Amino acid sequence: MDPRIREHAEVLVDDCAEIAAGDQVVIVAHHTAEDLVVAVAELVGERGGIIHHSLGSSRARRAHKLAADEETLDQQNEIALAAYEAADAVVQIRGEQNLNETGDVPPEKNAVAKRANMAVQEALLDSRWVLTQWPSTGYAQKAEMSTEAYEEFVWNAVNKDWDAVREHQAQLVELLDPADEVRIVSGDTTDVRMSVAGNHAKNDADDNNMPGGEVFTAPVVDSVEGEVLFDKPVLIQGREVLDVRLVFEDGEVVEHEATKNEDLLTSLLETDEGSSRLGELGIGMNRDIDRFTYNMLFDEKMGDTVHMAIGRGYEETVGEDNERNESTVHEDMIVDMSEDSRIEFDGEVVQRDGTFGFEESFDG
Amino acid sequence: MDPRIREHAEVLVDDCAEIAAGDQVVIVAHHTAEDLVVAVAELVGERGGIIHHSLGSSRARRAHKLAADEETLDQQNEIALAAYEAADAVVQIRGEQNLNETGDVPPEKNAVAKRANMAVQEALLDSRWVLTQWPSTGYAQKAEMSTEAYEEFVWNAVNKDWDAVREHQAQLVELLDPADEVRIVSGDTTDVRMSVAGNHAKNDADDNNMPGGEVFTAPVVDSVEGEVLFDKPVLIQGREVLDVRLVFEDGEVVEHEATKNEDLLTSLLETDEGSSRLGELGIGMNRDIDRFTYNMLFDEKMGDTVHMAIGRGYEETVGEDNERNESTVHEDMIVDMSEDSRIEFDGEVVQRDGTFGFEESFDG
Repeated sequence: MDPRIREHAEVLVDDCAEIAAGDQVVIVAHHTAEDLVVAVAELVGERGGIIHHSLGSSRARRAHKLAADEETLDQQNEIALAAYEAADAVVQIRGEQNLNETGDVPPEKNAVAKRANMAVQEALLDSRWVLTQWPSTGYAQKAEMSTEAYEEFVWNAVNKDWDAVREHQAQLVELLDPADEVRIVSGDTTDVRMSVAGNHAKNDADDNNMPGGEVFTAPVVDSVEGEVLFDKPVLIQGREVLDVRLVFEDGEVVEHEATKNEDLLTSLLETDEGSSRLGELGIGMNRDIDRFTYNMLFDEKMGDTVHMAIGRGYEETVGEDNERNESTVHEDMIVDMSEDSRIEFDGEVVQRDGTFGFEESFDG
Repeated sequence: MDPRIREHAEVLVDDCAEIAAGDQVVIVAHHTAEDLVVAVAELVGERGGIIHHSLGSSRARRAHKLAADEETLDQQNEIALAAYEAADAVVQIRGEQNLNETGDVPPEKNAVAKRANMAVQEALLDSRWVLTQWPSTGYAQKAEMSTEAYEEFVWNAVNKDWDAVREHQAQLVELLDPADEVRIVSGDTTDVRMSVAGNHAKNDADDNNMPGGEVFTAPVVDSVEGEVLFDKPVLIQGREVLDVRLVFEDGEVVEHEATKNEDLLTSLLETDEGSSRLGELGIGMNRDIDRFTYNMLFDEKMGDTVHMAIGRGYEETVGEDNERNESTVHEDMIVDMSEDSRIEFDGEVVQRDGTFGFEESFDG
């Protein structure tokens, strides 16, 4: 077995999920990821845990959803609920071979099934959970990379000294957490300000998502002012929306455009009250993620980028005196900060052209 | 998809597990069987059921068992237990690629894990369950067949008009159920008599095992007299035991021999009190199973054979006034009845050279 697979199993079992003797561990994976499942199963065994592994098939999910009517899909999955409720920890591994496998399931059916299984999702989130990526052919193709190059990319992004990463990122958290105002400028297309006063900055390293590598917070909902051009493609319902440009006033999107699939953007912004306001501001710091791969699990942690999400804010980032964006939408969009760009906290430049003020090569 | 796969999904979902609206259905399969999982998922959806599918990996099971110590394996799998308890029906699909995958797990560990999961097994048996076979490369190799020929063999054996099969077999049940004594004679090596008085004859068609195709009962434990040469290989702990010959007195094996691996047979017979006595007599009636494939799920239903199992008897076959063989062992062994052979019930020939008395070509 590729030694990078065992190395990643250690990250998942020891760093992220912190498996100990007596733990009951669900491993949910796409079946292409069998090698990583084997490595995780072995380590859980060594730590004294019991496994229940369950390789999934997106083809089977599609077949069931297409065949079932909405009334059927509106039933809760009692089996999945019982399994997650009995689990101390859950390791989820993505790795579809064809990312369009469920693309012909009517969105209404997906929506019904998703709503019916909210309790399953909550039971999952109540466990110690971690989500990671298997470098499957499908994801490699989506990233426009050979499978071997994509494997290299994935393992570099997820197999790290996460304690060192956390320490490095803590320097930014210390600046962002007490700050009141953030300003983001890139070229002459992006200049946006927002208050983060009273909200919390979080350090994402070896936690629930692999790869980690971002510092994130919530903007104060009504405080966002200015305009942003998102350089990287946004995927809405699996379709590419290009050159998204948003203009904010009093926190709300008052103008929007895109050069491709603008109608999808429009409909997303109109979903509910929160979907035309920001819920998250994140700063990507994982420099092993040096390219956009059409996979938000990686893209939002890309070094030298920031991302803003319209829609729902994360509970842990919202201060108790501030309002939380409660939208059902959460759509991340990315701005390239590597050139002709700066991030300011309370008027002070903390990053210029991708380099942070606390880094040696910084040229304030 | 091969139409025989969809045909078999119908047998599983409609004939065996009788899935109806509202059913919560676990599909447990080896991951090579993805196509059949897809077909079952689709049909369950059409019938109004919810699926939880879970493709397994024998490599992952092996890795966990090898790494875990016995104390760890002695813990119950709470997740599997919760899942099966929440299930109305369970569809199990075998299809390992390498039947020796778990061959290097110490038997003590397997024994501990098996004992720890008795409750899981009981929860499974409490559901409407069915076990079937995917024609994997591993099973094809074990059967000494090409994969394509093995596929043909498997689909022929499992895709049938099971109502017609049940009706055909009922003719034998009607003779066996009221009978008191069974005598089995084959060549000059097998001549054995046993009482079945008070015990029940069962008709196995589209029930819990696919393929079905046998009529079976329990011998009265202390009544077996005579000798049997089992023509087909017996697999004990995955190893081949050849030309097993047993001599019975008052139901007990008083002499035994084998031309290969006799020591395994000896140790099996010495396991407990019941392991040197019979627990089952079965008559194979599925003539599409026309060869021995080293897979008891098929072999015991082979046309023109009988099988006897040393060890545990099935509860539903033992009359209330009779003793049940309570051994932990249940090992089926097969006698070829196609030539120079006969089965008698109460002195009357009911089968000669593989042909039953109720069949046209019978020559009593």
